[in-house]
Amino acid sequence: MTRKIFVTGGCRSGKSAYAQRFAEAAGPRRAYLATSQALDDEMRERIRIHQDSRGEGWRTVEEPLAVAETLAAAATEADVVLLDCITLWITNCLMADMDDAKILARADELADAIAAAPCAVAVVSNEVGSGIVPDNALARRFRDLAGAVNQRMATQADTVILCVSGIPLAVKGSLPL
Amino acid sequence: MTRKIFVTGGCRSGKSAYAQRFAEAAGPRRAYLATSQALDDEMRERIRIHQDSRGEGWRTVEEPLAVAETLAAAATEADVVLLDCITLWITNCLMADMDDAKILARADELADAIAAAPCAVAVVSNEVGSGIVPDNALARRFRDLAGAVNQRMATQADTVILCVSGIPLAVKGSLPL
Amino acid sequence: MTRKIFVTGGCRSGKSAYAQRFAEAAGPRRAYLATSQALDDEMRERIRIHQDSRGEGWRTVEEPLAVAETLAAAATEADVVLLDCITLWITNCLMADMDDAKILARADELADAIAAAPCAVAVVSNEVGSGIVPDNALARRFRDLAGAVNQRMATQADTVILCVSGIPLAVKGSLPL
Repeated sequence: MTRKIFVTGGCRSGKSAYAQRFAEAAGPRRAYLATSQALDDEMRERIRIHQDSRGEGWRTVEEPLAVAETLAAAATEADVVLLDCITLWITNCLMADMDDAKILARADELADAIAAAPCAVAVVSNEVGSGIVPDNALARRFRDLAGAVNQRMATQADTVILCVSGIPLAVKGSLPL
Repeated sequence: MTRKIFVTGGCRSGKSAYAQRFAEAAGPRRAYLATSQALDDEMRERIRIHQDSRGEGWRTVEEPLAVAETLAAAATEADVVLLDCITLWITNCLMADMDDAKILARADELADAIAAAPCAVAVVSNEVGSGIVPDNALARRFRDLAGAVNQRMATQADTVILCVSGIPLAVKGSLPL
Repeated sequence: MTRKIFVTGGCRSGKSAYAQRFAEAAGPRRAYLATSQALDDEMRERIRIHQDSRGEGWRTVEEPLAVAETLAAAATEADVVLLDCITLWITNCLMADMDDAKILARADELADAIAAAPCAVAVVSNEVGSGIVPDNALARRFRDLAGAVNQRMATQADTVILCVSGIPLAVKGSLPL
């Protein structure tokens, strides 16, 4: 199975859990590409909870920035790669002082790497643009980027899934499970 | 009819109105389980508007915390119970200094009470996790809890409905009306 | 074609692009009814990007407040009118010190003008009510109004579309393209 899925939704809507179930059905060699960086206790705790929720058969690769290259490398020796998540990757890019053009170019490279991957790929992101427009200019820039990158990810995916209260809803293609 | 529905959506998306139409179709003996507490004028005004929008045939029960017990009791003498809403109940739990484990255990009790109810039940919640991550740690805790509790409610429901601009969309099961 | 569509979704979810594709398929005489006012550089830049994304065959009409009248006039000599967007129009009404009752009455007039238009109409809005409840009373008033006006727009539309990561999802009616 070389299906490419993109999973989005609000906070605690079941996105990562759905992507994990997809990956577990895709094959025994599973790579988890984590974009998170444990910079504080709250993040460390969130990462630990996510790790505990994954069972056996996962290889974890942590990469805050070079996700296209890392995904391409992991895909050569896996049945499925789960990239979790896009919005943290964008945050990492902003913290590394990349400008918008560079971030969007990197997103295009990631989309190309996903399309070229010889294995199944699940990409997880977050809906961050359905609240009030933030006061803060950086937050506005972040949510604009998140929307633009999510669109790139959705365009290249076979299936786009919106999670609502833990329930997956196919907005493009059909649910793989 | 003993159908159990869970209705979520953003602010002013038509969730309560849809749940009320469901309840009005479910039978003449309708219990409205309100989790709201009129602590200020703005809340008092919101409660009044909601009450005015309900017609005849409703019995109102106000309960900020013990929703599982109150729902179970109301269900014995009603055709339908409408619980509105989950996010205010979570707010009440936080204000009562409950920790997350206790709130989630209470949510499991509520899910069990809904499953056991001999009448139809409609539960209303809110989507609060699709904006920018809040600066405030309590707000982050609240939206994590809201997502987790919404998932429990959706799991036990026959039908999960996302309201968008007043239009109900079934994300699990089929629309009852 | 005199189809009336309403397109909503989060920030950068592909709403305007979808509405433009709809309009381009609707006929050669296209009116773009812009509610935006270029009050600062960030807004000026957003407007320029949107204008550049539209091709030939568009007549642009800018109107911050009197959208019902302007839409009715534009509709007499167009195959399609695209109104973009409702939430900026509400912001303009708030800045002009209109009270809620007046804004909602104006929204009813707009809904009537859309229903009466002899041409196709696409209305674009934003989901702003799926984040944390804002601290700020004006922001709460804005998102209540946005929800209420979006409901009016969705009620009169043949088709209501929620955009998710650039993918259109029909929540009422069927996708026109």
